[in-house]
Amino acid sequence: MSLTLVIGGARSGKSKYAEELASTHNLPVSYVATATAFDDEMAARIEHHRARRPEQWLLHECPLELSELLKTEAKKQQVVLVDCLTLWLNNQLHNNAQQNFSLLFSELINNLQGTAAEVILVTNEVGLGIIPLGEVTRQFVDEAGRLNQQLAQQANQVIFMVAGLAMPLKSR
Amino acid sequence: MSLTLVIGGARSGKSKYAEELASTHNLPVSYVATATAFDDEMAARIEHHRARRPEQWLLHECPLELSELLKTEAKKQQVVLVDCLTLWLNNQLHNNAQQNFSLLFSELINNLQGTAAEVILVTNEVGLGIIPLGEVTRQFVDEAGRLNQQLAQQANQVIFMVAGLAMPLKSR
Amino acid sequence: MSLTLVIGGARSGKSKYAEELASTHNLPVSYVATATAFDDEMAARIEHHRARRPEQWLLHECPLELSELLKTEAKKQQVVLVDCLTLWLNNQLHNNAQQNFSLLFSELINNLQGTAAEVILVTNEVGLGIIPLGEVTRQFVDEAGRLNQQLAQQANQVIFMVAGLAMPLKSR
Repeated sequence: MSLTLVIGGARSGKSKYAEELASTHNLPVSYVATATAFDDEMAARIEHHRARRPEQWLLHECPLELSELLKTEAKKQQVVLVDCLTLWLNNQLHNNAQQNFSLLFSELINNLQGTAAEVILVTNEVGLGIIPLGEVTRQFVDEAGRLNQQLAQQANQVIFMVAGLAMPLKSR
Repeated sequence: MSLTLVIGGARSGKSKYAEELASTHNLPVSYVATATAFDDEMAARIEHHRARRPEQWLLHECPLELSELLKTEAKKQQVVLVDCLTLWLNNQLHNNAQQNFSLLFSELINNLQGTAAEVILVTNEVGLGIIPLGEVTRQFVDEAGRLNQQLAQQANQVIFMVAGLAMPLKSR
Repeated sequence: MSLTLVIGGARSGKSKYAEELASTHNLPVSYVATATAFDDEMAARIEHHRARRPEQWLLHECPLELSELLKTEAKKQQVVLVDCLTLWLNNQLHNNAQQNFSLLFSELINNLQGTAAEVILVTNEVGLGIIPLGEVTRQFVDEAGRLNQQLAQQANQVIFMVAGLAMPLKSR
């Protein structure tokens, strides 16, 4: 039915905004978590997010197989909230930095087209600071930017978050 | 009377904008500086800011005790300009990284409510780049984001600065 | 005739936007590249940009002598597209970090005033993340911010790019 992209910095209120948006639809919600609890700090961050979510939301843990999941879930009359694309990309990069990212992104976007679900995607803007040294980091910034551009082009609505405030970048 | 939050990146013109805003009110100005001259580079930055300010502005140097200062100063019929919240947070983090930041922020915000002064707060957005390694840096980004969200929620006006240009994010 | 500043993060779609804007004018286009292929990665990035540009555009490679080039080129009835100012500043900083940057910027801006050309400048916002350690990096962030502010003040139009979407910051 529609695709909304919520983009912003770390701790900009993206997740909270996306969760509130998900609740405004009178539909069941499938929550897709891409984070993996690889250490205690990450486990605490995941728990912080989990505690805020309504209990009746269905949880899908999906560090890598997002395209496959969306192929099924986006066809249902429901809200699908993915939090977040940037962690998914990071997981993909650590899994196989040599893979074809153009292909990976076009598969993802194909599975978001003409869907029945209200899809809400959370993503980070990471390119507005000094780009740190390290080839993998630069690759991450490049691919994150490309992914965000492609998702924003596809989206019906794009929201930029600053300090918990939503700036609409696109609306149709 | 009202609370204005001026948020932006490094060298985005935040201070200059806030100082010009302070001058538009026909009121005495209390300038609250949170920076401390711990090295020559910082001393030069402080001097650069000082040289630009009108001489009749009252200077309060306040690296840590901001809540206490605002408790008194925000009750007066004046402009209170705090530059900047991010350095204050950094000072707090270096002073005691284990303290209760939620409590610290709620004390600050309590002292900003129902005040007589025109309060102008300058703060940095630091979450739109790659988050560097280091637990303290991540904690800083987290707490800075939380503080900015809480201040933005409380503020009557929020201004986002890019290249010296002001984008209003909130106005009421 | 007019000066447009396109500012945004890494991989935000700045160059693509600027190139499309250049094509909308019914004028010959002089493309000014400030990048230098100092390694294979940079060579690949330059080639990626080059492949996208129309063949009839005139290419000027200009890592340092931008003011001199604009003095001549900006007087012609054409589009002058400079991509990007941030790399030029980086080249200047590596060439001579002790030079007078205020003077350097005012020379550049003088050569942009009252020109016959449609000038389009691409630049990066780099101050919205954590500022990394290192004095040269901090100097880069400071000078980049100062340059962006001065260009934005001079510009007739300023566009902020996020995820390939253009937010107008200034228009006159």
